[in-house]
Amino acid sequence: MANRIAVIGAGPSGLCALKSCLEEHLEPVCYEKTSYIGGLWYYTSNVIEGRGCVMKSTVINTSKETMVYSDFPPPADCPVYMHNTKLVEYLKAYASHFDLKERIRFEHEVLGVVQAEDFAKRRDNGTHVGYEDKKVLVVGIGNSGGDVAVELSRIAKPVLLSTRRGSWVMNRIEKNGLPIDILLHSRVTDLFKRLTPRSLLNWAVEARLNARFDHELYGLKPEHRFDSQHPMVNDELPNRIASGTITIKPDVKKIGPTSVEFVDGSLEDDIDAIILATGYNFGFPFIDHPALEVKDNVVNLYKYVFPPDIQPSTLAVIGCVQPLGAVMPISEIQCRWAVRVFKGLSSLPSSDAMWTDIRNKQRDLSERYVKSRRHTIQVEYIEIMDDIGSKIGSKPDLGKLFWKDPRLAWHCFFGPYVPYQYRLVGPHPWNGAREAIMTVWDRTLAGISPKSKPNDSMPLWLYAILMAVLAVVIKWLIFVLF
Amino acid sequence: MANRIAVIGAGPSGLCALKSCLEEHLEPVCYEKTSYIGGLWYYTSNVIEGRGCVMKSTVINTSKETMVYSDFPPPADCPVYMHNTKLVEYLKAYASHFDLKERIRFEHEVLGVVQAEDFAKRRDNGTHVGYEDKKVLVVGIGNSGGDVAVELSRIAKPVLLSTRRGSWVMNRIEKNGLPIDILLHSRVTDLFKRLTPRSLLNWAVEARLNARFDHELYGLKPEHRFDSQHPMVNDELPNRIASGTITIKPDVKKIGPTSVEFVDGSLEDDIDAIILATGYNFGFPFIDHPALEVKDNVVNLYKYVFPPDIQPSTLAVIGCVQPLGAVMPISEIQCRWAVRVFKGLSSLPSSDAMWTDIRNKQRDLSERYVKSRRHTIQVEYIEIMDDIGSKIGSKPDLGKLFWKDPRLAWHCFFGPYVPYQYRLVGPHPWNGAREAIMTVWDRTLAGISPKSKPNDSMPLWLYAILMAVLAVVIKWLIFVLF
Repeated sequence: MANRIAVIGAGPSGLCALKSCLEEHLEPVCYEKTSYIGGLWYYTSNVIEGRGCVMKSTVINTSKETMVYSDFPPPADCPVYMHNTKLVEYLKAYASHFDLKERIRFEHEVLGVVQAEDFAKRRDNGTHVGYEDKKVLVVGIGNSGGDVAVELSRIAKPVLLSTRRGSWVMNRIEKNGLPIDILLHSRVTDLFKRLTPRSLLNWAVEARLNARFDHELYGLKPEHRFDSQHPMVNDELPNRIASGTITIKPDVKKIGPTSVEFVDGSLEDDIDAIILATGYNFGFPFIDHPALEVKDNVVNLYKYVFPPDIQPSTLAVIGCVQPLGAVMPISEIQCRWAVRVFKGLSSLPSSDAMWTDIRNKQRDLSERYVKSRRHTIQVEYIEIMDDIGSKIGSKPDLGKLFWKDPRLAWHCFFGPYVPYQYRLVGPHPWNGAREAIMTVWDRTLAGISPKSKPNDSMPLWLYAILMAVLAVVIKWLIFVLF
Repeated sequence: MANRIAVIGAGPSGLCALKSCLEEHLEPVCYEKTSYIGGLWYYTSNVIEGRGCVMKSTVINTSKETMVYSDFPPPADCPVYMHNTKLVEYLKAYASHFDLKERIRFEHEVLGVVQAEDFAKRRDNGTHVGYEDKKVLVVGIGNSGGDVAVELSRIAKPVLLSTRRGSWVMNRIEKNGLPIDILLHSRVTDLFKRLTPRSLLNWAVEARLNARFDHELYGLKPEHRFDSQHPMVNDELPNRIASGTITIKPDVKKIGPTSVEFVDGSLEDDIDAIILATGYNFGFPFIDHPALEVKDNVVNLYKYVFPPDIQPSTLAVIGCVQPLGAVMPISEIQCRWAVRVFKGLSSLPSSDAMWTDIRNKQRDLSERYVKSRRHTIQVEYIEIMDDIGSKIGSKPDLGKLFWKDPRLAWHCFFGPYVPYQYRLVGPHPWNGAREAIMTVWDRTLAGISPKSKPNDSMPLWLYAILMAVLAVVIKWLIFVLF
């Protein structure tokens, strides 16, 4: 059994790793190369070689209740979509509430997997980047490319945004200004999604997105369907295109000294700067082991956590996933699982079985998504949470819950899908979880306006009846369909 | 008959005044106190005492086809919502196309209504304003207040936006990403509006605006109905509120040295700056005549153009209106009317009749709008255009047009309402007007994406039949209703 755990990095995944270790009475120490917590969410005005960070204006694209740790809801007055400074505030509050900071060694860069000597190495090549009145080409239309283009479009000359494939674009807020993920992520919609043909779902989603703005007219319509690419979240892009402050261009063909030729034959001259928002490669340069080799962004990890060939399992990768949802709750549940594996409380399948699972997952990805280095760690939010949650006994059993607490069962099934559901049962349950689940909407609405009021007024017997009807319908559906 | 005309200012109204004078063979000279054309649309990075200008990022809130001069359509590839630099480009192209520039005396500030001697007076107290990481309160939620708050929210601390009444907020682009004014302004919707009870219309519009974001939840819902206030156009405000980078506050009660108390009792401290976006007073300080006196933003002008007591009429005020639509086409038609009055080709009613008209208009305003200095020059776009257009014989007669050119009549009635309609008949018709009216959508769509294609494929006979059916229905409706 491993007892002393090294956590590398004090970003959102590192912090919940620390916390998970502590709640299993392990001895974690976290090495963080900077002097702060928050990882890339901590904005620095200087560009520091080897470190990425958000832009000054970056706002997270998952709403607060869906993206937080399972036993630490955000304050009611926290905005529903956190600005980077708010998110760092939340992470600091989490670190402070669970006494994580004393476990972090700041300004300790890990150069190898053996614990390094204390040293402080800061490579501060700070240069302030000035794009005012410059003609800028942004290449790539992921979330970062979109954010960068929108940001520059306010101060630079009209920004050129080049894309190979286009993209479906979502707004953070949807019907009535409510957060899109709170509206869409629930167990009932998840069930509905599983029972509905993919093409029908895609048609419905695409129609809705086109109602906001016609993707074809705006030069953004991809050839692939909505669910074949990690979607883009951008609130301002259509209006920036309509005002001509962003111009959509196709793929780059050739870059000259100050000009760029595009594949449609068009040419743009007097380009002052090109920003490549073409994605990133990830890897583990400080670990010299074939099991952690990454090629074309493909890494062979069981559930994106455990290298099957490192036996016994003493190394876990956390948060190396790209969900249609929030990363932080997945990081957390991975951590909770990993520490139980380290302690021997949870066992992994055989190496062969893990390899089979990895291969199956890779085949599924290649069948569904457009071929891209961007889609190698794609996961379904609820699916992976339930998958790992069930391994540690944290996945709520709605059937049982219905008899015990129909109102809670109702909220778990029909209400927004939130991480607190994994603190009802299993290891280290949190006695605030029920209340947190029942009051998701209150905190969400309060995050928009302080004046909004709670609205759960349905009587208990009604919950019970509705849940019973629902149970019958589902049973019947399953009987008919399978 | 007045022959030599002084035009004061080379902004959007001044330019079309020059042009109208020239096409009536008058002798205009334009005095412009700056060294450029464009008026407040010309962005200067320095703040210059006594001159207002747009922000660096300002985009006009009327779409290109509805806001241009009637005989000078914007290029197809001009963005559908012009950035301030694009608008100045358009004005320059207009000035150059109609040889207006040689008539402008730049750096000539008018101090009195008698022609001043040549002089150049520049008062450049330029200071660059820096709000980065400051805590800023913006007071007032007109279009400028909203724009300023959104702009600062990207670089300042969370911006406080104080409003007495709240506001209904519209996005520039609506269904499928099409410009809202192109979708809404047409003669058929205007007719529909006249035939529908106000409260029903308000209900429908408010429901649509609430579907974008719930104005009550977002703390913006006014007590008044949609059409009782000049609406706000802002594409980004809801998302900025959802991300907490803008916080809506009620009216200011008391301002301390660094703190502000609001009427709900809440207090904000450490305020670094307060920006008053509480509107503006207009006036004519260089004209010492009781007929041009302005009190509480109320000016007594017949159709907002002619002071009834200056007889004979040798002075016209241009563009002193606030439409639910674009100002520039109204300025232009006012100019076309004014020059014909100056020349004696068009006559005004008696002074008494003009006073009656002014009083009636003021009574209508006070009945409809919330009491505010903001609603003293409010006009309905199509109504005032038709009103003045009919005075100069430029208003198209759709009945006649139907027999002559049913396809054009169809476009004039059902198509987007555009200023080119006033160049079909009357003085100085433009032989490109028909084509410009028929191709509004083409240029609009091309302003969003160069790839879009023309889509008018309906055969002539179908236009004719549909127009005939329509005529019968309208006759019947009028018969039944009145």
